[in-house]
Formats: sequence, structure tokens, C-alpha cells
Amino acid sequence: MNPDRYLDDLAVGDHWDGHPIPIEQDAAIAFARQYDPQPMHIDPVAAAQGRFGGLIATGWYVAALVMRDYIETNPWGGTPALGIGVDELRWLHPVRPGDVLRARREIVELTRSRSKPDRGTVRVRTSVANQDGREVMRFSTLIQLPVRPA
Amino acid sequence: MNPDRYLDDLAVGDHWDGHPIPIEQDAAIAFARQYDPQPMHIDPVAAAQGRFGGLIATGWYVAALVMRDYIETNPWGGTPALGIGVDELRWLHPVRPGDVLRARREIVELTRSRSKPDRGTVRVRTSVANQDGREVMRFSTLIQLPVRPA
Repeated sequence: MNPDRYLDDLAVGDHWDGHPIPIEQDAAIAFARQYDPQPMHIDPVAAAQGRFGGLIATGWYVAALVMRDYIETNPWGGTPALGIGVDELRWLHPVRPGDVLRARREIVELTRSRSKPDRGTVRVRTSVANQDGREVMRFSTLIQLPVRPA
Repeated sequence: MNPDRYLDDLAVGDHWDGHPIPIEQDAAIAFARQYDPQPMHIDPVAAAQGRFGGLIATGWYVAALVMRDYIETNPWGGTPALGIGVDELRWLHPVRPGDVLRARREIVELTRSRSKPDRGTVRVRTSVANQDGREVMRFSTLIQLPVRPA
């Protein structure tokens, strides 16, 4: 685990890369069957005849994998963080089985709470690219984080 | 399946309700183990001693269940729709095992594409409430939809 990091340890511009995220067809289909059962996500034959010429992963699966990668990069060590929301999420380019994605994260805003001085929020901008360097998804996340205890 | 609906069949203010979405502990934990393995989402004992006094579902699981509910409500019939992005997603209140959620969706914006006259975008605002009527999550989605073929 990384060392604990609190709001006051962070700076706008801090950034870090995630691990490679391989997209596996069986897992992508299994997720989509449960949560986004559209032909382009679950039926390779129908998908091959569709607008993308093949199966594409549902954007919610990609988001879930990127969430796991965020947890695995453990940016705040053992400091308890809480996701509050997501803004400007865009699925920019199809994600296909066999792709290997990578997330890059950057702190773009730090706000100390006025009403609760023991905490604040970090806004992290996440950009996810595929093996060709093409950006496939981006979003920004608002995360509540405590300040360093006195 | 509902009748096909195209961009020009829709009006700002159109709204519809989803089905009841029960939150089951085992499924919530299984999802979180895969995609958001934080103690508050996967470990009932640790969660009971944490800030929420018990296990809460990861927001990404709630989002995935609400996505499935959107597909099941089949708002556009067989018309091919494409999710482009999500804005202003907020997790407002903890979602716990045993909760039963319900989504309400409303069309808040319709935009015909200038460059591609055969299509446009629908912005749908989704509000998800629990069995007590408390809003637990909201977001707006940008969906690409074709216009009715001539």
C-alpha cells in the first residue's frame, strides 16, 4: 500500500498512470448481459453486421474496469476517500475485445470545505487511451478526502 | 418491445418511470469485489464500524443496475441509440442492501445535428430514489438517436 496522503499533501498537476487494462471478450459479454444487454455488446454475429463492424464493450464495463484500476493504483494509501460524483464522462471511441487500455489521472482542482474544515474535495481528470494511443474515454471525478489530522 | 421512436417523435418534458430495482447484498458485494474492492463495499464487518454504519453499494453498481433498467424500459423501441456520455452524476445518499430503488427519466434537451441531418442527441435526466423517496443518485445522459427515415 502507498503512504497515506491527505488533501493538504496534494497539488494541482499531480498525475499518475494506471496499469494496462486488457479487454477480454468473454468478460465484456458477461458484464453486458447483466447490465447493458444490447446486440452490439453481447452478440458477436449481430455486432459484426452493425455500425461498428464487431463487438464493442459497453461503456459501463470500461468505467468499472477503470474504477478497479483506480483502487489498485491506491493514490491515497489508507486514507478514506469517498466518490461523490462524475462529470463530463465521454465515450469517445469504440473499445473492442483485444484492446489494452491505460488510464492517466491528474489532479485538476483541490477545494477545502468551508463548512467542514477537516475535509475537502479533489477533482481528478481521468483519460483512458487504447494501445494505439487513441483516447477512448474521459471523465472527471469528485472525491472527498480528509485533511491531515492535527 | 415498444414502438420505434426517433428523435422527431420526442419532446422535452417526456418522462417515464423504471421498474423497482432491489439491492441484494450478495450481488452488490460480488460486483464490488470485481470493480470497487473497498471495505465499505465488500466487508460487512469493517463496514459496520465505518462511517456509514454498514455495507453500502458501490455507486458503479447502482449505475450499472440503472443502465439495465434503462434497457428494460426500452424507450426507443428498436431504434438504434448510442450512449455518448454522462454529465453531473452525483451519488447523493448511501444505497444499502435491502433498498429498492426506482429511476425516473425525463427528456430535458433535444438537439438535431447540424453536420449530420439524419441524427441528433437526446439529453435524458435520470433521478434514482429509494423506497423512502430519498434521491440516491442523479445524472444526465447524452444519447445519439436517428431521425425518422424519410
